[in-house]
Amino acid sequence: MMRFATRTRRATGSQVREILKLTQQPDMISFAGGLPAERAMPPLDLGAVPASLRQYGLSEGELDLRETISQRLAALGRPCPPERILITSGSQQGLDLVAKLFVEGGTNIAVEAPTYLAALQAMGIYGANFCSVPLTAQGIELNQFAEMLKRDQPALAYLIPTFQNPTGCCYDIETRKTVASLLTEAGVPLIEDEPYRDLAYDTVDRQPICSFMGDAPWVYLGSFSKIGLPGLRVGFVAASEHLFEHLLHFKQATDLHSNRIGQWWVTKALTSGLLEENLQQLIPYYRQQRDVMEAQLHGHDMAALASWEKPAGGLFFWLTLNQSIDTNALLQRTLARNVAFMPGTPFYAADVDGPATMRVNFSHANEAQIEQGIGVIADEIRAML
Amino acid sequence: MMRFATRTRRATGSQVREILKLTQQPDMISFAGGLPAERAMPPLDLGAVPASLRQYGLSEGELDLRETISQRLAALGRPCPPERILITSGSQQGLDLVAKLFVEGGTNIAVEAPTYLAALQAMGIYGANFCSVPLTAQGIELNQFAEMLKRDQPALAYLIPTFQNPTGCCYDIETRKTVASLLTEAGVPLIEDEPYRDLAYDTVDRQPICSFMGDAPWVYLGSFSKIGLPGLRVGFVAASEHLFEHLLHFKQATDLHSNRIGQWWVTKALTSGLLEENLQQLIPYYRQQRDVMEAQLHGHDMAALASWEKPAGGLFFWLTLNQSIDTNALLQRTLARNVAFMPGTPFYAADVDGPATMRVNFSHANEAQIEQGIGVIADEIRAML
Repeated sequence: MMRFATRTRRATGSQVREILKLTQQPDMISFAGGLPAERAMPPLDLGAVPASLRQYGLSEGELDLRETISQRLAALGRPCPPERILITSGSQQGLDLVAKLFVEGGTNIAVEAPTYLAALQAMGIYGANFCSVPLTAQGIELNQFAEMLKRDQPALAYLIPTFQNPTGCCYDIETRKTVASLLTEAGVPLIEDEPYRDLAYDTVDRQPICSFMGDAPWVYLGSFSKIGLPGLRVGFVAASEHLFEHLLHFKQATDLHSNRIGQWWVTKALTSGLLEENLQQLIPYYRQQRDVMEAQLHGHDMAALASWEKPAGGLFFWLTLNQSIDTNALLQRTLARNVAFMPGTPFYAADVDGPATMRVNFSHANEAQIEQGIGVIADEIRAML
Repeated sequence: MMRFATRTRRATGSQVREILKLTQQPDMISFAGGLPAERAMPPLDLGAVPASLRQYGLSEGELDLRETISQRLAALGRPCPPERILITSGSQQGLDLVAKLFVEGGTNIAVEAPTYLAALQAMGIYGANFCSVPLTAQGIELNQFAEMLKRDQPALAYLIPTFQNPTGCCYDIETRKTVASLLTEAGVPLIEDEPYRDLAYDTVDRQPICSFMGDAPWVYLGSFSKIGLPGLRVGFVAASEHLFEHLLHFKQATDLHSNRIGQWWVTKALTSGLLEENLQQLIPYYRQQRDVMEAQLHGHDMAALASWEKPAGGLFFWLTLNQSIDTNALLQRTLARNVAFMPGTPFYAADVDGPATMRVNFSHANEAQIEQGIGVIADEIRAML
């Protein structure tokens, strides 16, 4: 028999992947993935790509892109030189690099409950022991967070403070500052994941927590998949001084460097203003999608079945059902009627018994599909009660 | 103080990376990296990329590319359905996925001595304990290989049988068959890495070892960086039945999927015949480069200082010095005269005391640079004796 590493037992098929496959079926109304809407994406006009990009590049990534990102971070209140910015193959790769740096069997890792399921997967593979802290409408619950930091002494805190996946929660400014000072005091590095930060439909505070961290250790994960083109796989990691070099070494051993054409397109799209212009259309479009979904939730009297907060940004509604029904069984029923959503269970680490919850994406389906799909979900919940 | 994972101590800066940086200096004559020659690369004409490629793709990669690769593998004597082919971000990522699957602290891993240094790095990070077996002109030394398999029972054997990096060695057909039967008998999975297989300047046997493995476990790593465009970061992993699924799960957790534009370009370049046509120019060009370097080695009477085999393919000469001089010190001297090569030490795992060796790349420099650079190296060796 072959002998695999212990971590192989922890790497099982991902629900995200299975569900992305489902969304490829032509008749499926999918609220399951986090797919940006193709009709609102910027055009993919590559034009004449410089011939020099054919050659191997540097592990850090293209300097002009890192300079542009550095300026954007400074504008967010987090100055970081290009020398501490690393281009990654999507921000998912940033998670893998962070996990390589910090996580081995039994390492305590602080997370929100619920949190991004592929982060649980990326860190779980390396043997993370998750320490979950619940979310409130203002962000992570601060008393429990402070207690957990003392009790569990985690190696890092992984947080998604802006339009969180899956809940859509956006930490308020006081919570952000308090989190930064609690982490600084405890000496626990912050891993701040912000793929959704530019998808803001209402005016809310969203200054990065790492901007309040001073000289304390932090890593910031950014992505161009939600405002640019996910198929290019271009994200980035910015990090404080003593962390960056390690992440770079792991990047080098993992895939040498990220693809250069994707980096070139993103650089062009950022510096020409294309991404900014497209965002001016994307935001109203997604806001409208969100509002249509909220109207449909009310239209099908979902308020009698579940509670939710209207998200100020991001791509998801997060529903907490009033009664404890099995949302995996619910999914099987709606799939039989060609409607997909994401059950809440995989967004909770093993240390939490979450309530009956579901994540419903509003960016991918069109208005008619939202009306029909929410109707099917409401029907099937009622049928199960 | 921050607590890092144990593997972080094993992830140090890579000599490859430092040397790739050096090659960016305009005056440097570099024989150090494995950079393909830009003047012999196919053109990067992207034309109209389908808008659908903007969206997230499947973790496995684009189906049409996997089908094309499947046909190419069948033509090499190793039938493998597209369902067991995974597109990776360069074949370096394949190494990382293989390491994730098999390697943890103290796992025995069989390697050639010397072997690809970034493979030592990729598997070493996860804690591999390398079991090195020397190479002869015919391939891995079979008696020692058989003995090592029995004694060390490695979790896998990592081999580069075709135009090996760094030595240029190409296993003969008998050695290939014997390796396959020894591995099959021992139940040890083969990891066969073939980035250079299409760069053949003389007629030699190069049927993949995995084609002789029958139902025994194998992984085949392929790359389009040496015959296509390295900056695109497109490689692949093909694997036997019980290994594939695990590699796919790790890929999904690592970066979701590889960039789609690179995959699209490679598919087009393969199916249109562009890569094949370009290869018809690339091969004579590299053969000429090899022959120029061999002539310069003789012209500077390097045969009095070192021995080598003329490589039948690949990108490197491998020199074994007659006397034991410190090739790192030699490198410092040649760098002072703007000439870079790769000292042999990092190509040996820690369990081997290699002789004084050096890897000299012949694809990147032009003929005048080869003449000048080999002269500088010969000079400095003589000065050190």
